[in-house]
Amino acid sequence: MEHAEKKAGTLIEALPYIQEFYGKTIVIKYGGNAMINEELKQKVMEDVSLLKYVGMRPVIVHGGGPDITQFLKKVGKQSAFVSGLRVTDEETVEIAEMVLDGKVNSDIVNMLNCRGVKAVGLSGKDAGLIRASKKLATVYDEAGKQANVDIGYVGQVAAIDTSILDTLLDNGYIPVIAPIGVGDDGESYNINADYVAAEIAGALKAEKLLLLTDTEGVYKDFEDKDTFISTLTVAEAKDYIKTGIIYGGMIPKIEACLKSIESGTNKVHIIDGRQPHSIILELLTSSGIGTQVIK
Amino acid sequence: MEHAEKKAGTLIEALPYIQEFYGKTIVIKYGGNAMINEELKQKVMEDVSLLKYVGMRPVIVHGGGPDITQFLKKVGKQSAFVSGLRVTDEETVEIAEMVLDGKVNSDIVNMLNCRGVKAVGLSGKDAGLIRASKKLATVYDEAGKQANVDIGYVGQVAAIDTSILDTLLDNGYIPVIAPIGVGDDGESYNINADYVAAEIAGALKAEKLLLLTDTEGVYKDFEDKDTFISTLTVAEAKDYIKTGIIYGGMIPKIEACLKSIESGTNKVHIIDGRQPHSIILELLTSSGIGTQVIK
Amino acid sequence: MEHAEKKAGTLIEALPYIQEFYGKTIVIKYGGNAMINEELKQKVMEDVSLLKYVGMRPVIVHGGGPDITQFLKKVGKQSAFVSGLRVTDEETVEIAEMVLDGKVNSDIVNMLNCRGVKAVGLSGKDAGLIRASKKLATVYDEAGKQANVDIGYVGQVAAIDTSILDTLLDNGYIPVIAPIGVGDDGESYNINADYVAAEIAGALKAEKLLLLTDTEGVYKDFEDKDTFISTLTVAEAKDYIKTGIIYGGMIPKIEACLKSIESGTNKVHIIDGRQPHSIILELLTSSGIGTQVIK
Amino acid sequence: MEHAEKKAGTLIEALPYIQEFYGKTIVIKYGGNAMINEELKQKVMEDVSLLKYVGMRPVIVHGGGPDITQFLKKVGKQSAFVSGLRVTDEETVEIAEMVLDGKVNSDIVNMLNCRGVKAVGLSGKDAGLIRASKKLATVYDEAGKQANVDIGYVGQVAAIDTSILDTLLDNGYIPVIAPIGVGDDGESYNINADYVAAEIAGALKAEKLLLLTDTEGVYKDFEDKDTFISTLTVAEAKDYIKTGIIYGGMIPKIEACLKSIESGTNKVHIIDGRQPHSIILELLTSSGIGTQVIK
Amino acid sequence: MEHAEKKAGTLIEALPYIQEFYGKTIVIKYGGNAMINEELKQKVMEDVSLLKYVGMRPVIVHGGGPDITQFLKKVGKQSAFVSGLRVTDEETVEIAEMVLDGKVNSDIVNMLNCRGVKAVGLSGKDAGLIRASKKLATVYDEAGKQANVDIGYVGQVAAIDTSILDTLLDNGYIPVIAPIGVGDDGESYNINADYVAAEIAGALKAEKLLLLTDTEGVYKDFEDKDTFISTLTVAEAKDYIKTGIIYGGMIPKIEACLKSIESGTNKVHIIDGRQPHSIILELLTSSGIGTQVIK
Amino acid sequence: MEHAEKKAGTLIEALPYIQEFYGKTIVIKYGGNAMINEELKQKVMEDVSLLKYVGMRPVIVHGGGPDITQFLKKVGKQSAFVSGLRVTDEETVEIAEMVLDGKVNSDIVNMLNCRGVKAVGLSGKDAGLIRASKKLATVYDEAGKQANVDIGYVGQVAAIDTSILDTLLDNGYIPVIAPIGVGDDGESYNINADYVAAEIAGALKAEKLLLLTDTEGVYKDFEDKDTFISTLTVAEAKDYIKTGIIYGGMIPKIEACLKSIESGTNKVHIIDGRQPHSIILELLTSSGIGTQVIK
Repeated sequence: MEHAEKKAGTLIEALPYIQEFYGKTIVIKYGGNAMINEELKQKVMEDVSLLKYVGMRPVIVHGGGPDITQFLKKVGKQSAFVSGLRVTDEETVEIAEMVLDGKVNSDIVNMLNCRGVKAVGLSGKDAGLIRASKKLATVYDEAGKQANVDIGYVGQVAAIDTSILDTLLDNGYIPVIAPIGVGDDGESYNINADYVAAEIAGALKAEKLLLLTDTEGVYKDFEDKDTFISTLTVAEAKDYIKTGIIYGGMIPKIEACLKSIESGTNKVHIIDGRQPHSIILELLTSSGIGTQVIK
Repeated sequence: MEHAEKKAGTLIEALPYIQEFYGKTIVIKYGGNAMINEELKQKVMEDVSLLKYVGMRPVIVHGGGPDITQFLKKVGKQSAFVSGLRVTDEETVEIAEMVLDGKVNSDIVNMLNCRGVKAVGLSGKDAGLIRASKKLATVYDEAGKQANVDIGYVGQVAAIDTSILDTLLDNGYIPVIAPIGVGDDGESYNINADYVAAEIAGALKAEKLLLLTDTEGVYKDFEDKDTFISTLTVAEAKDYIKTGIIYGGMIPKIEACLKSIESGTNKVHIIDGRQPHSIILELLTSSGIGTQVIK
Repeated sequence: MEHAEKKAGTLIEALPYIQEFYGKTIVIKYGGNAMINEELKQKVMEDVSLLKYVGMRPVIVHGGGPDITQFLKKVGKQSAFVSGLRVTDEETVEIAEMVLDGKVNSDIVNMLNCRGVKAVGLSGKDAGLIRASKKLATVYDEAGKQANVDIGYVGQVAAIDTSILDTLLDNGYIPVIAPIGVGDDGESYNINADYVAAEIAGALKAEKLLLLTDTEGVYKDFEDKDTFISTLTVAEAKDYIKTGIIYGGMIPKIEACLKSIESGTNKVHIIDGRQPHSIILELLTSSGIGTQVIK
Repeated sequence: MEHAEKKAGTLIEALPYIQEFYGKTIVIKYGGNAMINEELKQKVMEDVSLLKYVGMRPVIVHGGGPDITQFLKKVGKQSAFVSGLRVTDEETVEIAEMVLDGKVNSDIVNMLNCRGVKAVGLSGKDAGLIRASKKLATVYDEAGKQANVDIGYVGQVAAIDTSILDTLLDNGYIPVIAPIGVGDDGESYNINADYVAAEIAGALKAEKLLLLTDTEGVYKDFEDKDTFISTLTVAEAKDYIKTGIIYGGMIPKIEACLKSIESGTNKVHIIDGRQPHSIILELLTSSGIGTQVIK
Repeated sequence: MEHAEKKAGTLIEALPYIQEFYGKTIVIKYGGNAMINEELKQKVMEDVSLLKYVGMRPVIVHGGGPDITQFLKKVGKQSAFVSGLRVTDEETVEIAEMVLDGKVNSDIVNMLNCRGVKAVGLSGKDAGLIRASKKLATVYDEAGKQANVDIGYVGQVAAIDTSILDTLLDNGYIPVIAPIGVGDDGESYNINADYVAAEIAGALKAEKLLLLTDTEGVYKDFEDKDTFISTLTVAEAKDYIKTGIIYGGMIPKIEACLKSIESGTNKVHIIDGRQPHSIILELLTSSGIGTQVIK
Repeated sequence: MEHAEKKAGTLIEALPYIQEFYGKTIVIKYGGNAMINEELKQKVMEDVSLLKYVGMRPVIVHGGGPDITQFLKKVGKQSAFVSGLRVTDEETVEIAEMVLDGKVNSDIVNMLNCRGVKAVGLSGKDAGLIRASKKLATVYDEAGKQANVDIGYVGQVAAIDTSILDTLLDNGYIPVIAPIGVGDDGESYNINADYVAAEIAGALKAEKLLLLTDTEGVYKDFEDKDTFISTLTVAEAKDYIKTGIIYGGMIPKIEACLKSIESGTNKVHIIDGRQPHSIILELLTSSGIGTQVIK
């Protein structure tokens, strides 16, 4: 009985959140551990289904790094990296697209459909969803002089056409998006999934963008757990990047957050994908987790 | 953290129920202790709001016995009872209507609206919702001979016109209904709320009718808690009434259940209104409580 | 035959008015003699039904003073009055609400429904229709110094949420509104019906507000029937109040008119509710009666 | 004042009729004196406008005999008649169409539009409204032997396609129809307007077909005004034709009535177009006039 | 086979044009030879049907000069002309309307309907489509002094009410319009069809206005075929009129083009109606013909 | 000029076909040479775009055999075949899905989008489009005894859920479908594209199913070109299979045709994909090609 009351209490606690986010668009960048660990995977799918059933409009954007690497290995293809970006020739981007669209994306769609919601897989090619342009890698010579290097079919978002997303969301589907864009001449580009999610969320004027990461969020001093930052304003974030408090791999993530807010997203949350059910804990309980970035 | 996971587990447990009842009409007969105890009242309102937010279409039918009695006392009016039914002259039905429609109903509407949903109070007069005919009381003389006695403005449901309910439900409102019907000449009738709820649920082809009572449900032997009946078919119920297993005040409740199922309701649940959050425990958790009546 | 032609003539005379007011919202403040005299009552209901059938969207706001007084007497409750306003403690407002919502309102709804239209009773609590704030009474001490006195649950309109009215009007119902508002903490307030009608009309951008009164309209000199004012501009009305031409009980009525026009009503008519069929005579014939207030 | 009350009474008397015919389709065959007398013309237009404004869906089908005859004379063309039907060569039907569609029809449309409603002129050619086949004239030789004679472009209705009427009625227009049909090879046929009105009413499942004639209705004995028939069933009508009670020019009119009822019209009224405002007297007052033909 | 490929090539060539004009409104002024030559007539009807089937919204405005003249002759009526405009007394305009609306218009409607599209004939009287005012003729006395002369019922467009066109186009019909306007007192006016087409196109914000003429288009020097003008800007056109390059009968046509563009038409094309299938050659092939007038 | 008239003629010739197929669903099985030859590919895309622009609802189902074989070779995987079906282990079906969904499908979508239409790629997993069950291969031992052999993830269609297709078609998109189905436990199955196309067409009640093949159609005697069969009824087809006139690789194609017609497709056409623009020649010209199978 006491147990039953606790259950009821949790459901009631969720009420104001369900109310607040009813009919709102929630974009989820799905990647990292939450995509590798089988148990975590299932929990993410449960979470997304629940969001849908309580009236939100979830959209998933996924990455797929490890699968691509593994498959390139399988066909005996070695990748060079420049400034952390994979040099991507035509064969590489073709394989990347096959893996992202024909495997990773299909698997997510399939897992969701098995839970009774209706997911539809998309890449940026479908209905012209993501238009891309070439992204150059930035390198520094010994003298510290900066130069841009062409590393092939690595892209950045040039434009988003949300019409297919609107059609699917209005008809009750969950769009699942592979981060492939299409250039002016019809060629494919592999784009960083954080950026794609950020741009999609902005173009949809999403209520929230959730970035599932493998960290608990942002710290002022990563060594000192007491310096955890729950809320970060755009101004603070820019300042922390300038002063080096935010550095390394966190910089592109934070830049994606800022881009997303500037182009129309209401709030961005960097949450720990390694925490089971991190999505619904963030959205439906008072135990909000991770770092939120706000205007 | 462990606590957080339990919360998430409860929300996930609710998923299949939310899914199953999405867009379905749930009629709730609200009465008894749950209407007197201030804390229970608030919990019922929280429950109903939650149902609305997760996509169901709740409809409330309420009684109001104690308030009517108390008010009649206030104006110095004594009531006679025949076979458990109040003899209801014109002044009595006028006061009953004022109390039910102008006080009890308004209070429920107000409590719901304070929780952010939009409730609208109705009596059977609004848009011709409940048409009533006179209900006679059955008495027995010393010889055991049965006779029908006119006890005034006590009614039974003659017809339900659901059009105003459809309009309100389709536009996102929660209808709250006082059990007053209108006769052929425009006169008011006070009707038993269980029967009104049963007929409304049937006419709406409701997914469920929940009867909030002051018992845990139906027992084969009320003294022996082990004889609790979780599920009762229509055939069994009729048999139990005939054989006296169901008797006394439970008979009219069960008859209302049978009437409701025959006229279109999918399932009826007799649940314990004294249990906090009994509505969502019944609808959204695996800890279903009370007795369900099914075809 | 000649008789038949006269009939036809009257119907044809109504044509331009029917044309002009087709689909327009007409708010009627129903009170005074037209609400007490049984024959007048029936004629008002006939008039409102006709408006509905020729394509207008009537909305009724009613008062209920005499019924409240009578019922308070019944429960042995004496009321004090300050500056003409009833001192209204919690018990008084509860009884006022019961009488207004559970009796007066129900009766009007019932009379309309018996004429084949579909009326729905509302109070300001339904779907958050009328938000109220406390209204203080203004008193003057012997020295003529003005002070404000708290007289309990007497309210003024703080905000109107027309969504439930739009839903009902768009679906062909006639809303009938009791002048009860709800405060920030959920408490009930009794509000003057003229003001409620004025605010409702303004919020609906009504084509017309008709105030049924027990006078023929406004006179420059009440003693001299030749000084009747058919049309009064807002500017003139303000001037007449300042110069004392309009005085006494007519002041709050005129102030309600001005408020209504300022917040969006097109025209206000003060008409004589003692004249049978005054509503359709005003709206559908060239024999317009009463005083109209215009911008 | 007394005058005002009579006006109000007439309007209130119309209420049940307005209610009954709201949204119903009323087909009016307009012809005879009501089309020649300038004052009657104006009154018919007033009547039709009123029907539209109180929510009915009027459709006009007109004849045009005198105008055609007059115009044929103007171009020096003589017509032969066989069994009362004009022998109609190609030039004659061309002129008939010009007069009906380009003059009579345009004039009616114009008179209606001047009253603020929106009328649209149609002939049977527009959007394939009336498909026609050739109608032969029946003649008898001296021996009484019957034969069929081809008299040219005189047609009968082969099929009605109501789609353009539905579009216009649903968008608030009044269709005004000239009785021209189109044959399988695209040629024009002049058709009797009574029959066209009857078929249009049937195809639209009209509530009523009103035939404006130059008689008061049907008599058992035309000489004895006391034998007037207010209501005629289909069975009686057939019987009266067989037994000769109905004879001469009334036969085709009654046959059109029967045809109309059989194909879907609810009621047909033969009314006296010479009586001013006969349409609204029939439809909106208790002083119903003329003979009604019912199932 | 080679033949088949050519066919396919032509269909593919049409693709970008079909794409560009999908759902766009195309107003066609139909007159001149294309209206007299039986074979050309059929081809225009085929063209218009094709436009409709590939998703455009064609609207036809037609003239009817020769038919009017011929019919006036038939009734023995002589016309005087002032500055090229027919002096039009009441009888003349009545006949003009009969011919235009009851014959020319009906014939076009009929020919289109025989091709499976649904055309509806209109004059400016239908639903108040074209409001007209009197147009005076400009004359010069011997001294070259200019004066305006009243020549009767010759009109110019005062206002266009496109509501009936919107209704018909949105429901898939092709409106066919006779150039008759209606004055403030309900009288008919005959209006030049070029001007009517120009104003209709402007009011509909048409994508294109096509003027079918009996010339190939505009030349700088009509004698020198090499001076053909494919594209004419509004500024150039005004300049050419001022400098006399455009002169005579071409002036009113060009003025109509300019008027049309100024009031909302995107492009106007003067094309050679004597060329079979000139409409689809202009709209659906790269072999665009005639002179286009653009902003 | 003569050239222009021929063009016009071709467009006009297409008119009745455009009219007939307007708004109709056309399913195209795309495979064989038309998918390998770069020039043919472009022409198929032009054809499909044209169908869309003239108002049809095209749906593409594609195969992908050669690409799969080539990619399996790349990863060093050898395939065994049983009765012509590839033995498909888990790794093989994973690669097949990646190639079909992530490469072949994406390329088609991309080529269409470059022509201005909006295509969306789907596999049978998206929104539960294609449910599959295992298909066993039939083998014969030396004694000619038949047996069924499990060859892994080779599937057959168990059910089609057209809801996502309806959503996309109703919103103007062209669905492009990879022949992957999903089993009861969420596993992928590779299905023969002819069968998928046949079932999709049947479930959509398609107007036509076009099978692009590498033959001209069906012959009674393949050696004698004069025995070409233009039209084949279902009964004849069954007879020809029984009697061996249809044999070998043509049998499964014809069986797919029969299945499609039985489940709701109106007509099936086997056309020569090697003929440029075979689709529009078949659909939009009188030069229909190939063999049609009809009820």
